Amino acid sequence: MSGPVARLANLKLGGAQQPRQSLSRTSSSTLDQASRNADNAPSADLGLIGLAVMGQNLILNMADHGFTICAFNRTVSKVDRFLENEAKGKSIVGAHSVEEFVGKLKTPRRVMLLVQAGQAVDDWIEKLLPLLQKGDIIIDGGNSHFPDSNRRTQYLSSKGLRFVGSGVSGGEEGARYGPSIMPGGSEDAWPHIKDIFQSISAKSDGEACCEWVGDEGAGHYVKMVHNGIEYGDMQLICEAYDIMKRALGLSNKEIGDVLTKWNKGVLDSFLIEITRDIMYFNDEDGKPLVEKILDQAGQKGTGKWTAVNALDLGMPVTLIAEAVLARCLSGIKPERVQASSKLQYVSRGSGKFEGNKEQFLDDLEQALYASKIISYAQGFMLMQEAAKEFGWKLNKPSIALMWRGGCIIRSVFLKDITAAYRKSPDLPNLLFDDFFNKAIHTAQPGWRDVVAKAAELGIPTPAFSTALSWFDGYRTKDLPANLLQAQRDYFGAHTFRIKPEFANDKYPEGQDIHVNWTGRGGNVSASTYQA
Amino acid sequence: MSGPVARLANLKLGGAQQPRQSLSRTSSSTLDQASRNADNAPSADLGLIGLAVMGQNLILNMADHGFTICAFNRTVSKVDRFLENEAKGKSIVGAHSVEEFVGKLKTPRRVMLLVQAGQAVDDWIEKLLPLLQKGDIIIDGGNSHFPDSNRRTQYLSSKGLRFVGSGVSGGEEGARYGPSIMPGGSEDAWPHIKDIFQSISAKSDGEACCEWVGDEGAGHYVKMVHNGIEYGDMQLICEAYDIMKRALGLSNKEIGDVLTKWNKGVLDSFLIEITRDIMYFNDEDGKPLVEKILDQAGQKGTGKWTAVNALDLGMPVTLIAEAVLARCLSGIKPERVQASSKLQYVSRGSGKFEGNKEQFLDDLEQALYASKIISYAQGFMLMQEAAKEFGWKLNKPSIALMWRGGCIIRSVFLKDITAAYRKSPDLPNLLFDDFFNKAIHTAQPGWRDVVAKAAELGIPTPAFSTALSWFDGYRTKDLPANLLQAQRDYFGAHTFRIKPEFANDKYPEGQDIHVNWTGRGGNVSASTYQA
Repeated sequence: MSGPVARLANLKLGGAQQPRQSLSRTSSSTLDQASRNADNAPSADLGLIGLAVMGQNLILNMADHGFTICAFNRTVSKVDRFLENEAKGKSIVGAHSVEEFVGKLKTPRRVMLLVQAGQAVDDWIEKLLPLLQKGDIIIDGGNSHFPDSNRRTQYLSSKGLRFVGSGVSGGEEGARYGPSIMPGGSEDAWPHIKDIFQSISAKSDGEACCEWVGDEGAGHYVKMVHNGIEYGDMQLICEAYDIMKRALGLSNKEIGDVLTKWNKGVLDSFLIEITRDIMYFNDEDGKPLVEKILDQAGQKGTGKWTAVNALDLGMPVTLIAEAVLARCLSGIKPERVQASSKLQYVSRGSGKFEGNKEQFLDDLEQALYASKIISYAQGFMLMQEAAKEFGWKLNKPSIALMWRGGCIIRSVFLKDITAAYRKSPDLPNLLFDDFFNKAIHTAQPGWRDVVAKAAELGIPTPAFSTALSWFDGYRTKDLPANLLQAQRDYFGAHTFRIKPEFANDKYPEGQDIHVNWTGRGGNVSASTYQA
Repeated sequence: MSGPVARLANLKLGGAQQPRQSLSRTSSSTLDQASRNADNAPSADLGLIGLAVMGQNLILNMADHGFTICAFNRTVSKVDRFLENEAKGKSIVGAHSVEEFVGKLKTPRRVMLLVQAGQAVDDWIEKLLPLLQKGDIIIDGGNSHFPDSNRRTQYLSSKGLRFVGSGVSGGEEGARYGPSIMPGGSEDAWPHIKDIFQSISAKSDGEACCEWVGDEGAGHYVKMVHNGIEYGDMQLICEAYDIMKRALGLSNKEIGDVLTKWNKGVLDSFLIEITRDIMYFNDEDGKPLVEKILDQAGQKGTGKWTAVNALDLGMPVTLIAEAVLARCLSGIKPERVQASSKLQYVSRGSGKFEGNKEQFLDDLEQALYASKIISYAQGFMLMQEAAKEFGWKLNKPSIALMWRGGCIIRSVFLKDITAAYRKSPDLPNLLFDDFFNKAIHTAQPGWRDVVAKAAELGIPTPAFSTALSWFDGYRTKDLPANLLQAQRDYFGAHTFRIKPEFANDKYPEGQDIHVNWTGRGGNVSASTYQA
């Protein structure tokens, strides 16, 4: 796939660039100058608050596409520095105060926040509220948790304002040259921001990777699931790398070569691409830098939110959960170091890989591909359930399209998902689509061998394994949960239901049944007590 | 192990039983009679509100041990029915109103709530507050979420009252004849309830399965983890049953025989015992009832809370998480039925078990044992972290002791855990104890073979697999999270740290380092933006 820089070719440069005068040296006079320009007529198409990397890059991206943007920041000196440096010569103005900032915006005013998720967003909303008018739009482009965006949509709506909670993905480079943008909230805000958002977003086969997602927090919800899936994709690649390194004994260069090959096939994606780069990236001593990096990852973000939300909605999103927990395990490195001297590998085998390496590498590619299909199938199941739970209309083909370009998980794979949902928007599960159905069947033998071999060889594969177990459970009509229900009824009188094919007068279908398993105890089923 | 009924032998019958007069037939006069008895001097050692199965059985248990208990219920007619039936002839009185109820209690008043967790507990607290005096004790014996117990301890303390949040496990039979009781909250309440609680609790080798757990919500926290572990234990047994049934083709009778054997070894436990009973339990047509039970389990309880809390604390409690998610997967049965016709098993092997069944059954026992060790190790890690997080003092040997008898997860296994923590209360991890260290090494070869074979044969083993992956990850000094950190720095400038052994002037230890992986983009590390 084409690298991020190639997207520059898509830019609609020119447009409404504001004429800029020669700027004097001191920052305050820079601002005075800019202020005078805007005094008589508000000139900015959008105002953006928060000049960290993401905010700055989004402004530059918008300016490149011909929009005039007003920049503001809590620490005002940052505005000056930005105007004098990165923003110089572009259709970007700044402000000294919130009042001045709001005064520079065309109506309906579009104010975008790129600040720390949480209290800071609410604080800015409160600061802006007295200065805005009915119909103005506040856009939160940070990584807010979707319940906050639900709440803010309702709150601002009660004040006659429109709120948009928008996921923005692609890191700093994406923000600069074309991110994936996932807006949701007050739908009547969409016509007023659509042009800007779709202009600056990544394009995939000419289509913008930005569409209206749905009501209230739906945009941030989809971004959250995106990030969860990103956790999963990264964990899967880590497991493949670990197997190649420790089970097959490949060098980083050799792993890079495998990834180069994979990146031309079904796994073609941004994350495989950068992992290849990382494998080839040597430190000054000629040794791969990645091997010197501490194996301790954080996880206090949106990946965790996805796993928690899946548990809340009762959806079996196992791959993201394992990916988050794998980060937790990486996090307790000091204890692992201690454990590594106390817990040895024991098996019946030699502990060395035996077999055809080339075949195994192909199997590994299939294991990664199959596990990825499971992860996305789980992710879409979760979004589907959330839409039902929260009463959102979700456009599944658009979601896949939005993730196709600009964001961390962009891949050829998402093109196939887009196609699947375009062909059949009400597809109950990705695995029921002909393309993915065939793919998962083809991948199975290799996938099973990889999981089995890793277990024998002592290489941890929490994500590969959970994906396979989930697949084998999902395709099973009769799971052993019948025993679980019997146990619960035995010890806690929690009742069970009968399989429809065994229903009769004694055990009617759909009824809560309690049986006296021991001949002792009571026949009363539990009411308030839940074990 | 001895069955629950055997515990009757431990009862201290007699004691302070209240003399009861011949009761008239109508319920109101029953109460009037009881009220007159208590009018002049409060006679009850404890008052219990909530006469569902658990509440009734706890009262009967307390009365059997010589305590006088006052029973009350929102629907007062239930009090009458209880007094006329189960409570007849025992040291149990009742009340018509909250005022009357409180009036019958000796000081400091001990009021125990056995009502639905949530709002009902707060409502009862508010009803009781105006009637209680400084130093009185409210005990919540329901399945409350620990943050609620934290809050209630603080709230009642501010009113001069003492609060105890107590986990009670063992189902209806446990409540009647000896539950596991896990009390926490205001520690100065403990001397006033210790005698009652330790009298009615299960005994293990003569020791009461009830000890003071810790501050605030610590009791309910430990009960929550207990329930999470219960989810895990049940899921592991379900996987073993599924493998014996579908991979080995054993009949329920044969599985029952295997469980009979296992119940004499390291797996000796209540859950193996009842699963054996369930395997042998036939319906009227002579076929095993369990095979007719719908394989759809609920999961909206404390198992989920444990998994969510593990994610919140960043602890890799994978086995409970998978057990909860396995219930979620069982829950979408209609979709599984659909999937079962669309997704076929494919592998390179025959799909049939080949090998020595006896050996494999031994391996399965070891796989179950090893996975269980991992699950308990994870559970104790979680409690340790929670204690640190919330500033609780937790007595680990006592926790293991409390779970040894009375509750659902009671087992010989917990005797070994008690011994491990008694020998070394500050043991960093259960796997570092000599006994368990040896056990996990012995179990490894069989465990690996079971996980590998299940993957090849298409039997889902989410809990066995995650336990093995966790073990292999936990004992690994260098996990592939180094790559993950490189990826995060590549796409989002999230920085990484250097492994101590590679630290130098350029890459100092403990510093957040950003590298320009592409030669493009900036050298600025991300500040507010978190992918």
